[in-house]
Amino acid sequence: MTADILSRNDLSFLLYDWLHVESLTEHDRFSDHSRDTFDAMLDASRDLAETWFRPHMRASDQDEPTFDAAGIHTHEAIAPALRAFADSGLTAASFGEEHGGVGLPLTVSRACFAWAQAANIATAAYPMLTMANAALLLAHGTPEQIATYAEPQLAGTFSGTMCLSEPHAGSSLADVKTRARRDDSDETADTTGGAWRITGTKMWISGGDHEMTDNIIHLVLARTGPAGDGVKGLSLFIVPKFLPSGERNDVVLAGLNHKMGYRGTTNTLLNFGEGAHTPGGAAGAVGYLVGAENRGLQYMFHMMNEARIGVGTGAAALAMTGYLESLDYARSRPQGRPVGAKDPAQPQVPIIEHADVRRMLLAQKAYAEGSMALCLYAAQLVDLATVASGDERDRLELLLDVLTPVVKSFPSQYGPAANDLAIQVLGGAGYTRDYNVEQFYRDNRLNPIHEGTHGIQGQDLLGRKVVMKNGAGLRLLVETITETVTTTAALFPEHSTDLAARLRRLVDVTETLWEDGDAAAALAHATDYLEATGHIVVAWIWLDMAHAAEAAGSPLAAGKLAAAEYFFTRELPKVDPVLDRLAHPDSLLNDLDESIF
Amino acid sequence: MTADILSRNDLSFLLYDWLHVESLTEHDRFSDHSRDTFDAMLDASRDLAETWFRPHMRASDQDEPTFDAAGIHTHEAIAPALRAFADSGLTAASFGEEHGGVGLPLTVSRACFAWAQAANIATAAYPMLTMANAALLLAHGTPEQIATYAEPQLAGTFSGTMCLSEPHAGSSLADVKTRARRDDSDETADTTGGAWRITGTKMWISGGDHEMTDNIIHLVLARTGPAGDGVKGLSLFIVPKFLPSGERNDVVLAGLNHKMGYRGTTNTLLNFGEGAHTPGGAAGAVGYLVGAENRGLQYMFHMMNEARIGVGTGAAALAMTGYLESLDYARSRPQGRPVGAKDPAQPQVPIIEHADVRRMLLAQKAYAEGSMALCLYAAQLVDLATVASGDERDRLELLLDVLTPVVKSFPSQYGPAANDLAIQVLGGAGYTRDYNVEQFYRDNRLNPIHEGTHGIQGQDLLGRKVVMKNGAGLRLLVETITETVTTTAALFPEHSTDLAARLRRLVDVTETLWEDGDAAAALAHATDYLEATGHIVVAWIWLDMAHAAEAAGSPLAAGKLAAAEYFFTRELPKVDPVLDRLAHPDSLLNDLDESIF
Repeated sequence: MTADILSRNDLSFLLYDWLHVESLTEHDRFSDHSRDTFDAMLDASRDLAETWFRPHMRASDQDEPTFDAAGIHTHEAIAPALRAFADSGLTAASFGEEHGGVGLPLTVSRACFAWAQAANIATAAYPMLTMANAALLLAHGTPEQIATYAEPQLAGTFSGTMCLSEPHAGSSLADVKTRARRDDSDETADTTGGAWRITGTKMWISGGDHEMTDNIIHLVLARTGPAGDGVKGLSLFIVPKFLPSGERNDVVLAGLNHKMGYRGTTNTLLNFGEGAHTPGGAAGAVGYLVGAENRGLQYMFHMMNEARIGVGTGAAALAMTGYLESLDYARSRPQGRPVGAKDPAQPQVPIIEHADVRRMLLAQKAYAEGSMALCLYAAQLVDLATVASGDERDRLELLLDVLTPVVKSFPSQYGPAANDLAIQVLGGAGYTRDYNVEQFYRDNRLNPIHEGTHGIQGQDLLGRKVVMKNGAGLRLLVETITETVTTTAALFPEHSTDLAARLRRLVDVTETLWEDGDAAAALAHATDYLEATGHIVVAWIWLDMAHAAEAAGSPLAAGKLAAAEYFFTRELPKVDPVLDRLAHPDSLLNDLDESIF
Repeated sequence: MTADILSRNDLSFLLYDWLHVESLTEHDRFSDHSRDTFDAMLDASRDLAETWFRPHMRASDQDEPTFDAAGIHTHEAIAPALRAFADSGLTAASFGEEHGGVGLPLTVSRACFAWAQAANIATAAYPMLTMANAALLLAHGTPEQIATYAEPQLAGTFSGTMCLSEPHAGSSLADVKTRARRDDSDETADTTGGAWRITGTKMWISGGDHEMTDNIIHLVLARTGPAGDGVKGLSLFIVPKFLPSGERNDVVLAGLNHKMGYRGTTNTLLNFGEGAHTPGGAAGAVGYLVGAENRGLQYMFHMMNEARIGVGTGAAALAMTGYLESLDYARSRPQGRPVGAKDPAQPQVPIIEHADVRRMLLAQKAYAEGSMALCLYAAQLVDLATVASGDERDRLELLLDVLTPVVKSFPSQYGPAANDLAIQVLGGAGYTRDYNVEQFYRDNRLNPIHEGTHGIQGQDLLGRKVVMKNGAGLRLLVETITETVTTTAALFPEHSTDLAARLRRLVDVTETLWEDGDAAAALAHATDYLEATGHIVVAWIWLDMAHAAEAAGSPLAAGKLAAAEYFFTRELPKVDPVLDRLAHPDSLLNDLDESIF
């Protein structure tokens, strides 16, 4: 017996019974679509995941990328998988027809892409970055830049990267040192973005070098003014590995990072402009400015919500696939006997009959399905904002803004926790490489680190999102959750009351933390605040899902109710001691003398 | 800068300022010792860890054991490390002079061994198993068995294993199928334990085969009667790889397990008695009975408390070493600026100045030092029981019995949690194999699985330990903790009150859970009960440590107070929602219909 990579039934439930994603097709933008086209894309994604992504998951983990004088070597099964992915139209799917896509709603395309992420998150990282790169160019590039650099990415002949971090600047982008110098007399100057030469070193660049596509399009944050300009002085440049002329650009691989997981993804240190190549007869990586100078970070942040939904969905997908694998094991592995029936002459029972194994499965289900639901909910906010206008659009974008740190961090924290439980269900077997769960655990451990660490998400939530616009984001979240509380009160009186009580306390502690406006004092509690908010948000999602499952008479209703019950009795109460402390915040962390460590 | 493997200062604090381990030397058994001899052993252990264990930690992880027709290959640095360990006298240290040891108290020898575990837990697994094997033989073997099989292990020429699990019998030892058949006409019969032939397959045997010692002594659980006898029908046999005659015994390697961590330790599937060799002219692994028939599991369990302290100490040691490595990084890595001082012209500050990094360091310190303290406290109970008699001895053994599931499980759960935080402190760097923290995380993940899974510890605590002897174990634990509450009330009035309140509730929920004597209903909550007990016990340990540090005017006092404050404000309150639920236990897990998954 082999476990499914994801549950098609659960995704259908989320998309149709819960989010009613077909209603998007009432809008012009999505009017070519129907449940049938969505289903066809989901089925194609599943096939692709099973046929092209999962089979080399283990092999490309064990045989990680290497490089030598002959070039960079990636596992032989990755390039065909990427080709198959692009050929199936999935790279371009959520883009418009004019770019080769079919205008699929992001809600559906994220669910589709979750199959690839669950099957092999390291291989899926290449198209994920490529799609993000192309999306940014489509939003901010010139028509010529789009035609030259974005469309070949959507067609799968090029791939893309995002080059933000540097060796001395990870979370602190204010310290980016990479420089761009303009020279319009440069013979590489062209109409796609002037003539700039980039020099510097970028670190942690996933997909930063390989030989699986004809070209690699780097989007590089660099500064044109003095270092003291901080993040405001950052501009965004297209730096292709090969110039449109075919000439090799001056960007070279300086090193591969060897990681605990995600090993199939090349992760690189890249040198720009060191003179290894001399395009146009001179050292310096040729770059083309995207949009206006000094607005680089703004363009990046514009894509950040979607990128963070992507990370959250990947973490959720790994949690789901680990849950399904451990469930399959629990159903088929006989071990032990029920409590009180220890006659060894009786046959052993499948371990799913043991309460503690059920606890570990139900916790995984609660984390994984709750995370996936949250991510698809957020993706739907993007779709709804796209077709809305005016106040309604502002409202949807505000809700997405305030939810994004939770959408990124809850799955990234509880996805690995689910994978940890999957290992524990398998016991010793789970600790071996004969099963996939240990790899899920290693792969998923990246998610609380990249695209803004867990700590950064907390700072973003408490330091920006709940205070911006005079607290409008938090008020909107409270209103939205309160609607669910009201709707579900008849069917789930206890849960809705419990949720409402915690929500009130969250508002109270937010006020307490910001009472005297001391940001350093408040932000010392940011991670705890994120923790409490995450659990309240996911409890809301579970309550809403359970209600929808009952209302729809879904065959999954019993499972949704059990997992919601688990979340409300085992998880949500965990926020109480956190809220107690936030209500009386201490200064333990800020007051520490470092010598005590 | 390289981080220390463990903190010598912290171990000195624990042993001398807190446990006053010198007072053991007032007893005849330890009267040859003094603080000087303890210090000398600790220093030697540190040197050994730094010189012989840590240097190949990464190499032996990457170059894991293989086998082929020529034999089994282990990384070349492991055998010399094992030799150096035995030569330094550490294998035999806690055994009597008559066996080549120096009668070191277990409290000190565990602290010594923690250096090896922190430096390289996979290499440390070989002597750990060897010491456990020899200890069992010393307790239950004949003088001839001790001379033939135990003493060469203590001298380091032989090594040992424990063979309990089988492919279909991991946690369920009642289902062990390996058989032993007596035949006194067998020419292999000798005076060390009769003549038995063993047939069967053993799984997950660490150190089960290698070529680093002259012989490998397997202690094998097998049954002499029918399968229906369950655990009561299990006997214990010595099965050496080479018989005293030099003849190769009929035990062969059938496979190596490939693990996520602990890779330097060979972990094996062993076939006994398949006829690959024919000692004495016949197929069947020759075995020698230890002690009486049908008492095998009892002998194993006799060693279980010490073995579980060993696992706990290993998990604590990995937590400590990861904490120290991330602390070193946090002190030296500049990134970002204080909240509110974001002028990029100012230099970046070391990340230890950020509140969230301090949170992650303080949590690690609380988990790691709390775990190590708990393990050494338990080891001291063993020492004190050894020199006590009558009621006092019974009392000490009872306290050890009730604490053992916590001593095994808290470090095994929160040690990996500490290593997770160590990765997070390093960020992307922590996810690479350029630093050690990712390996600590992988290595430590075994600890909640082996020597009784986490779930089994919960069953042991709630199902046996707190109810045995009519609840005397729990009462004794409560008395012991209450003494600390009383002693510390003046100095730490809030903490002592908080601890006392949770302790009362723990007693109450124990009664509630067992109110109607329904074991299946009660044990469905065993893991949660273990969780609550673990936090209460470690809070007690922290309170007692903080008090001792203040009382001794220790230079570590400020750090102990900060970590205790962290534990009492951030960790102990987590038990409240767990206790709330245990006070009103539901039947969610037992009532589940499996089809909901």
